[in-house]
Amino acid sequence: MTTDENYKAKRKFERRVPRGDDQERLVCSDCGFIQYENPKVVVGSVVTFGDRILLCRRAIGPRIGYWTLPAGYMELNEDPETGARREAWEEARAAIQIERLLAVYSIPRISQVQLIYRASLAEPSFEAGPESQEVALFDWSEVPWKEIAFPSVHWALGHYRESRDQESFTPFSNPEGETGVY
Amino acid sequence: MTTDENYKAKRKFERRVPRGDDQERLVCSDCGFIQYENPKVVVGSVVTFGDRILLCRRAIGPRIGYWTLPAGYMELNEDPETGARREAWEEARAAIQIERLLAVYSIPRISQVQLIYRASLAEPSFEAGPESQEVALFDWSEVPWKEIAFPSVHWALGHYRESRDQESFTPFSNPEGETGVY
Repeated sequence: MTTDENYKAKRKFERRVPRGDDQERLVCSDCGFIQYENPKVVVGSVVTFGDRILLCRRAIGPRIGYWTLPAGYMELNEDPETGARREAWEEARAAIQIERLLAVYSIPRISQVQLIYRASLAEPSFEAGPESQEVALFDWSEVPWKEIAFPSVHWALGHYRESRDQESFTPFSNPEGETGVY
Repeated sequence: MTTDENYKAKRKFERRVPRGDDQERLVCSDCGFIQYENPKVVVGSVVTFGDRILLCRRAIGPRIGYWTLPAGYMELNEDPETGARREAWEEARAAIQIERLLAVYSIPRISQVQLIYRASLAEPSFEAGPESQEVALFDWSEVPWKEIAFPSVHWALGHYRESRDQESFTPFSNPEGETGVY
């Protein structure tokens, strides 16, 4: 469920400043419960096998049918790298080895922080999980650039390409002026 | 409000598996609203002026009276670096320049991800904000090691020290085997 859908689902929450606070919060008009809202963390990976890059064709919205990295929301009581490995397994049945942090992107409009890792496959073993229509390895020249799901997937692929020969580097952030809205 | 306090505040939420889901969620027994729970992002900085490090003595719980980095929860519609600058202003009235990402720590038990930056002050201008009893610059040999608020503050100071002469490096993560519980 996206944040927007989450907002639609709640019918009896109202937005007001609770006593003792200085910001508007979502307050249940039935029971007074305050729902604190925080940015969400997406964890994902640019996964390679040799020179080829693993991409997943989305079987769910948003951007159904478009290609993306294995990535998704981090869960409670999880660390980011475990989350990135879990997502690669869920979406691509890929057992990945995480190498290093590639990028920290943020999409303030939807309050999302993305931690994107470089990772590799020991063997070219993968298949579509329930949220993917198809999973495939692409040479750089074969990446379906016009069918990429999100701007941050473009960023991550470019940043991977730029840093693939470096052992140690400061992780990338959003390209100058880019906010991630598609 | 901590996650634990948040749990106590809600009286009419129950934990059950909503229809169509596969995990237990918090569901309002009055209105059926599902409160999705996600890890929270803390943004903060190791701030230096020359060789000295800025620390804040906490005026609020947890760990009131102990020293910490300027850091706090990232807000909605914010990017991480803006959040780290905001926290340095709120807690230490310090206008910081962020240099690079120092570390990504995680504390799975409390579902927290910490993005800690290296940052500097152009001038030694600071004072205690409302959440600090005191703010001060410390030489490394003067850091009040026995009065540090959280394990991750120890980690960040050590990782800063280890990398302070490096221009570009892979950000640190939790020291081996450390979970951040104090």
